[in-house]
Amino acid sequence: MNFNDWLTYIQQRTETALESLLPAPNLAPDRLHEAMRYAALGGGKRIRALLVHGAGSFTHARPEQLDRAACAVELVHAYSLVHDDLPCMDNDTLRRGKPTVHVEYDEATALLVGDALQTLAFQVLAEFPVSVTASGQIEVIKLLAQAAGSHGMAGGQAIDMASSGQEITREELESMHVRKTGALIRAAVLIGARAGEGVSDERRRTLDHYAKRIGLMYQVVDDILDAQSDTATLGKTAGKDAAQGKPTYVSLLGLTEARRFAEDRLAEAHEILLPMGERAARLHELADFIAHRAS
Amino acid sequence: MNFNDWLTYIQQRTETALESLLPAPNLAPDRLHEAMRYAALGGGKRIRALLVHGAGSFTHARPEQLDRAACAVELVHAYSLVHDDLPCMDNDTLRRGKPTVHVEYDEATALLVGDALQTLAFQVLAEFPVSVTASGQIEVIKLLAQAAGSHGMAGGQAIDMASSGQEITREELESMHVRKTGALIRAAVLIGARAGEGVSDERRRTLDHYAKRIGLMYQVVDDILDAQSDTATLGKTAGKDAAQGKPTYVSLLGLTEARRFAEDRLAEAHEILLPMGERAARLHELADFIAHRAS
Repeated sequence: MNFNDWLTYIQQRTETALESLLPAPNLAPDRLHEAMRYAALGGGKRIRALLVHGAGSFTHARPEQLDRAACAVELVHAYSLVHDDLPCMDNDTLRRGKPTVHVEYDEATALLVGDALQTLAFQVLAEFPVSVTASGQIEVIKLLAQAAGSHGMAGGQAIDMASSGQEITREELESMHVRKTGALIRAAVLIGARAGEGVSDERRRTLDHYAKRIGLMYQVVDDILDAQSDTATLGKTAGKDAAQGKPTYVSLLGLTEARRFAEDRLAEAHEILLPMGERAARLHELADFIAHRAS
Repeated sequence: MNFNDWLTYIQQRTETALESLLPAPNLAPDRLHEAMRYAALGGGKRIRALLVHGAGSFTHARPEQLDRAACAVELVHAYSLVHDDLPCMDNDTLRRGKPTVHVEYDEATALLVGDALQTLAFQVLAEFPVSVTASGQIEVIKLLAQAAGSHGMAGGQAIDMASSGQEITREELESMHVRKTGALIRAAVLIGARAGEGVSDERRRTLDHYAKRIGLMYQVVDDILDAQSDTATLGKTAGKDAAQGKPTYVSLLGLTEARRFAEDRLAEAHEILLPMGERAARLHELADFIAHRAS
């Protein structure tokens, strides 16, 4: 299967799996369940799900196990978007080309949607065998929790809120993004690998190095797109970082340097994968996809 | 140990365990970690932790395992209080005798505190052996997730928001509270039992029946206290239900009937425990404590 076909195939598998894992919209409380589906279905590039599947190819994980692990990571990502968009946070009205959850429904519903999507992520990992062993399953849950919590994604968002309108150094910017977006992207790779038979420590380290480059690159490109692209292409409000006085790689390095920084990380990610040969083909292609995406 | 000494002993153990599980306040991001500790430490009757330990006495669970399981349940409870108090929800300013988190810090911080406390609950259950087997540990995680999610606590809160100012039947009121407060109380009992060697199906059913009575009774007493007590005693704003036009057992049944309803559930809970003999002594006493508490 070529990369584009695989991309579509995994995106569709993920959508189908999420469809069946999310509570039906006619189950009480209907409005909450409808809004959870609105937030989690029908959009997004599913980069984290792709990374779970790409990394899963190393360890003979069963595709259904990878589907569930991928859904759990995507549910955490979806919850974070709903909460980040709230008025007390980034106050955004557009996401994936649709009104944000608190605009389409209301703030209280959006708050509960995020809360319940996070819970569902852990519920999915506990209800289905997402690894070949029970201890592997527990490790997957641990990886997701560590990535999402106050030392990971939620902590990064706290630093992001505190740094709006502040001067920060490149090191501080990087430390924020390692948490805010990097941690969950890294977890997607490690979880994908852990869903199967487990990998050697050496291979795990290699995947971890790859994941860290990818996480950083994802964010730099995000900053470039925010500065360069338009709202219609992004499906979310463009130019928000500058409008909110948020420090970004573009505001700190300028566009040309930021682009070079992204390409350097891409080259590193490719190089890291070299010793893994053909089995790393999807991860190699995914790095290209993340670096050169248009939204 | 008499009941009052045991109560203090478990409350102190829980506080100490939470102290050590919560991130240190000087770890970055400091403000978030400080606020997480503000929300989760130094208050509350720890009824859910007491139920975990009370039910744990059946299955030879190690006390440290019960501590961690109890902390996870208390962390989910603490997260729900922080989010329920937000302006878009119940908009409350006082909790456990202190300003609520969004008043003491700010809304964005309170949102992230709730998010990160929920994650931490699952992280604790995945990082430490909270059951004698890995499959028991996974079941504990599943019980907590099912109780907290959209079919449990978060769903109950959604129904609560939707029912403000509405006429609802007694069945609808009960169905709301089974989710909003009952689900987590029930989970505390089942998790306590599951932390050890596992119990027979029959005993599990007995504990489940007990937990359901306790959950209902807890809420009826909560409604009575809101109507009858004062803010200083409760540590949270009294009379809020009536002020917000919320349907409660008191508004639906009147005070006398609501009190009788609570006493009937207490008598049932005691009766359910009878066949379990002496080992159920703590659960028997806990039922009394929940029924006759002053806040």
